[in-house]
Amino acid sequence: MRFFSDNAAPAHPKVLEAIAAANRLDTPYDGDEWSRRLDAACSDVFGTEVRAFWVTTGTAANCLALAALCPSYGGILCHKDAHIEVDEAGAPAFFSGGTKLILLDGEGAKVTPETAASACDGIRKDVHQVQPAALSITNATEYGLVYRVGEVAELGKFAKERGLAFHMDGARLANAAAATGESLADLTWRAGVDALSFGFVKNGGLNAECMILFRTDLAAEVAVRRKRAGHLLSKGRYLAAQILAMLEDDLWLENARAANAAAQKLGRAAPQRLVYPVEANEVFIRVTDDEAASLRAGGFDFYEWGPGQIRLVTSWDSDAEAVDRLAEAIARLG
Amino acid sequence: MRFFSDNAAPAHPKVLEAIAAANRLDTPYDGDEWSRRLDAACSDVFGTEVRAFWVTTGTAANCLALAALCPSYGGILCHKDAHIEVDEAGAPAFFSGGTKLILLDGEGAKVTPETAASACDGIRKDVHQVQPAALSITNATEYGLVYRVGEVAELGKFAKERGLAFHMDGARLANAAAATGESLADLTWRAGVDALSFGFVKNGGLNAECMILFRTDLAAEVAVRRKRAGHLLSKGRYLAAQILAMLEDDLWLENARAANAAAQKLGRAAPQRLVYPVEANEVFIRVTDDEAASLRAGGFDFYEWGPGQIRLVTSWDSDAEAVDRLAEAIARLG
Amino acid sequence: MRFFSDNAAPAHPKVLEAIAAANRLDTPYDGDEWSRRLDAACSDVFGTEVRAFWVTTGTAANCLALAALCPSYGGILCHKDAHIEVDEAGAPAFFSGGTKLILLDGEGAKVTPETAASACDGIRKDVHQVQPAALSITNATEYGLVYRVGEVAELGKFAKERGLAFHMDGARLANAAAATGESLADLTWRAGVDALSFGFVKNGGLNAECMILFRTDLAAEVAVRRKRAGHLLSKGRYLAAQILAMLEDDLWLENARAANAAAQKLGRAAPQRLVYPVEANEVFIRVTDDEAASLRAGGFDFYEWGPGQIRLVTSWDSDAEAVDRLAEAIARLG
Amino acid sequence: MRFFSDNAAPAHPKVLEAIAAANRLDTPYDGDEWSRRLDAACSDVFGTEVRAFWVTTGTAANCLALAALCPSYGGILCHKDAHIEVDEAGAPAFFSGGTKLILLDGEGAKVTPETAASACDGIRKDVHQVQPAALSITNATEYGLVYRVGEVAELGKFAKERGLAFHMDGARLANAAAATGESLADLTWRAGVDALSFGFVKNGGLNAECMILFRTDLAAEVAVRRKRAGHLLSKGRYLAAQILAMLEDDLWLENARAANAAAQKLGRAAPQRLVYPVEANEVFIRVTDDEAASLRAGGFDFYEWGPGQIRLVTSWDSDAEAVDRLAEAIARLG
Repeated sequence: MRFFSDNAAPAHPKVLEAIAAANRLDTPYDGDEWSRRLDAACSDVFGTEVRAFWVTTGTAANCLALAALCPSYGGILCHKDAHIEVDEAGAPAFFSGGTKLILLDGEGAKVTPETAASACDGIRKDVHQVQPAALSITNATEYGLVYRVGEVAELGKFAKERGLAFHMDGARLANAAAATGESLADLTWRAGVDALSFGFVKNGGLNAECMILFRTDLAAEVAVRRKRAGHLLSKGRYLAAQILAMLEDDLWLENARAANAAAQKLGRAAPQRLVYPVEANEVFIRVTDDEAASLRAGGFDFYEWGPGQIRLVTSWDSDAEAVDRLAEAIARLG
Repeated sequence: MRFFSDNAAPAHPKVLEAIAAANRLDTPYDGDEWSRRLDAACSDVFGTEVRAFWVTTGTAANCLALAALCPSYGGILCHKDAHIEVDEAGAPAFFSGGTKLILLDGEGAKVTPETAASACDGIRKDVHQVQPAALSITNATEYGLVYRVGEVAELGKFAKERGLAFHMDGARLANAAAATGESLADLTWRAGVDALSFGFVKNGGLNAECMILFRTDLAAEVAVRRKRAGHLLSKGRYLAAQILAMLEDDLWLENARAANAAAQKLGRAAPQRLVYPVEANEVFIRVTDDEAASLRAGGFDFYEWGPGQIRLVTSWDSDAEAVDRLAEAIARLG
Repeated sequence: MRFFSDNAAPAHPKVLEAIAAANRLDTPYDGDEWSRRLDAACSDVFGTEVRAFWVTTGTAANCLALAALCPSYGGILCHKDAHIEVDEAGAPAFFSGGTKLILLDGEGAKVTPETAASACDGIRKDVHQVQPAALSITNATEYGLVYRVGEVAELGKFAKERGLAFHMDGARLANAAAATGESLADLTWRAGVDALSFGFVKNGGLNAECMILFRTDLAAEVAVRRKRAGHLLSKGRYLAAQILAMLEDDLWLENARAANAAAQKLGRAAPQRLVYPVEANEVFIRVTDDEAASLRAGGFDFYEWGPGQIRLVTSWDSDAEAVDRLAEAIARLG
Repeated sequence: MRFFSDNAAPAHPKVLEAIAAANRLDTPYDGDEWSRRLDAACSDVFGTEVRAFWVTTGTAANCLALAALCPSYGGILCHKDAHIEVDEAGAPAFFSGGTKLILLDGEGAKVTPETAASACDGIRKDVHQVQPAALSITNATEYGLVYRVGEVAELGKFAKERGLAFHMDGARLANAAAATGESLADLTWRAGVDALSFGFVKNGGLNAECMILFRTDLAAEVAVRRKRAGHLLSKGRYLAAQILAMLEDDLWLENARAANAAAQKLGRAAPQRLVYPVEANEVFIRVTDDEAASLRAGGFDFYEWGPGQIRLVTSWDSDAEAVDRLAEAIARLG
């Protein structure tokens, strides 16, 4: 029973069906009927006019957006544990031609206007130091915490005051929205977000992520950058169809709710062991080596996450029985 | 009836089946059981030990290989009509950090040791001029011509003598192999090829291409570059499964033969109009504007390809009846 | 007696004096009194408000400007024999992060609106092909030809119509201005030029070139790019002082006139042998191998320039006697 | 009386004389007689065969070396206060195509094998995290501390064990050598250093720095990178001549000793106020705002360096009287 990551889960049946339904001759690249529906479908979900780009990875979604938002010689403020810093192999610098990540501290990988301001203020305003040009946050964070609408809006206000572009890595935005009940619009563009990586692969997709531009003026540039980075697939319809399937009847929300609910169950099993409150679909708990071993012996797989901590990730298809058994096993640890 | 491009064709049913069969939880990235079988499966097909990397586009396959084969300050010899020059939005320079394409002439987009040597000899051996570091050819070429084993081997010999890496864009290598009956091994590594983009998407795949390294010493670097470029999908199994399905029972060869046969049929309809001999699955014919219009009026879609020429591309699923009707329509033009 | 290149000549005594005069403690980088006078001095010479940046090479001057004028994914139209294409080791791609040079034909390395338009029109307006974003010309050209004001203005008009930035490599702009008597203002910004490499090193400078921005809105970006490329010297006053010395009393013009006059003398010695009309300070003449050998035997050094041609370059300090002797030697060839 | 930085000091008279003596026609770039003597002269000073490259800035010297030592996708371990991190505008990423600086803590900007090892050990050995490929230290450090031979050798041993290239920013290496009396050979290649930025501009040079490759196999690549970055001046003799003048009769050492002696005098004036021991030519002392103001009122200029601290930098030409007066003023603060 694997609780490694939601990015290992299978695709939702409706996603597979959508791929099969798209399996006929159509215009290549993004000229097909599914791709051509994407802007409208995403604009509908976000309640404003957006431009949507399918890509196959969150790294591509994040870094294509960041390259359009930040010049090669600029800096991007982000948390020191942000995925773009820790798990993307330097892709932000690669896509943009050398941009620098300016790292912020903060509990649970959360950024605040205060930490961001402090970092900015520590940078001399001259040509010798890399000047910040963008702010990037992850919602839900890498530790499963959720930015509420008010928090995002404060960061958006800060970004605007400082002349920074505002990017959101939403690999698990669905989980954040499901957790709070807040709207996608409020969590993004109404709070000042310029570009968003809207994640589907961790939430029941097969291999389609969606990059959303609220700054639609950047669409032409992003389209070129996507091609140039080898991310313009010739049969784009199989990606667009996945995203449309995820949006239909709010499947994305339903899946996220299922994952979150499973995480809540695990979190309730040992509230005293929680490293962070369980808000989305990740559970970080404190265990000794022996306790970790006993859980593994019970057939549960997961990652260690620093000394004395393990990470449990639930997903849209988390097996109810397996979750119950793990919750019981954790509870039994005392 | 669309003869625009083989990259618009649907995926082969076996490819879809393979995707469906891979739809279960497994290790993310390329740790799953399908991805882990890829090296062996490709080594088997090529008759030597190779390292195989799934990616989603030919551009990614070409440019990841070229970035590993050529330093950022080096040059890549290629035909002036090569896909990497004409249709990849400058991706070779993007992936490598600024490499220069050194363009060669040649009928039907074919490169010869003579044209390549002439280009090299025209470059001063100093730091002011970009020195060639690699040679890239496309087989079958952008005009549907095929390099025979002997021709590739001569180019490989040339590359070796000049200290150049040797890359092959094999977006339609299957069609080349099907056309000549020559073996993949003879057409590639035995002829000196260091890295190959082995195309599947134009040949019945859904969205998986395969980059083959004969120089296995470059595998670690390519793995990093793939991740860094956002091309390491978290659910790689859906790509690996496609490739394995295409390799099984030589489906790749069967599909290519079907496409080639359809092209032959079209080519035989008007041999006097052919711009190039029909060797793979592309047919370039001379038509007047009126003739082109009459074909379009007959329900056939295709691209113009320069003044007075049209391009017809067949694919693995080309409808026999549609092909026959187009052949007749062409023949009727006289 | 060396006629290799004007870039090998010594520095003018006034330049050395200016360096010596600047040899005292002052603010580092470009905060010193000489650097702070540069904008005003150049604005004066060009008759409009400009921003001026000292750098140490023409390559840096060209490529910093081009990187600011053209996005990494854009193309730069230039002649196929342009210095930026042939003699800068791929620096335009390096500075900009991968920009592509789109090469034009034209006698004597001259570009016309017609050749530029033809190149643009051959590029499909889609994301697969690199779209032109800038036009770069060299005045005087690499073959010593001069664009007159009218010619530059036509190119400027073309660039504006097509939405292209307009760059001038003026490594020998002084020679062009001296040749025609036309004003720097007319030859540059009044004709639509956005940025200029104003060359001094080939014209009596020691190691200071000047990059002029007519688009002053780009100054902040260029300042950062200069630093980031390692071109912000800490004792910038020694560069600024050189440029100021060259501008004072039009020393730049006086030097260029001297070089041009020497070239005219050589050109008149064998008008029937001239490959191009002699307009600036370069003379290309047709000679047999034996003739070239005899000139060399006479103590004259120069470069071969293609089969049966040699290049003779004069400079501000060309020794009158040596020039006379060479002119006689050429005349004697018949 | 300015104690801002040694990079603002004038050039030594012998350097100016050397420039004047080089003011005659010679082969351009680095083909002149001075440049051709550089390898031998530097090999002599370092007691081993080296390849030496003149450049005009420490940023260029550092980043050309780092780009040759570290692939674009690799990481460079350095102190978080290192010049390459703090004061080079992201140049390491620019020159290398996106390399990442991996930041280390350490008192006085000093790196130890322990902090470096700890950083390395915290990086997962997979393609998702940037793997360290090089280690860079600054000697003397940004806070005027000196690595002794034994310390460098330990870091060299560490680098070798981990397969890291080893780079030294020696902008003030002369001061370090003067401080310890240790040899350049022992401080560099014998301790495992692969490439060195040997600084002259802060030590009496005009605008020439010297990049030394102990790994001579990288020379061809560095030569190309220098040209490509616009750092190959056409009249290189004026740079080479400066370096040769600095090496002659150990002028570099004499100048550094003078600067260090002045710093010692300042340091002895208020040992209880020193933030760091005075080892080279920088003095960091604790002062209140009022005390700083009173020093300024006395005619002394300097930078604040964090709250409650000021930095005083001496140079080869520090005026003895001014230094005495400043020492007295500091002593008077109590």
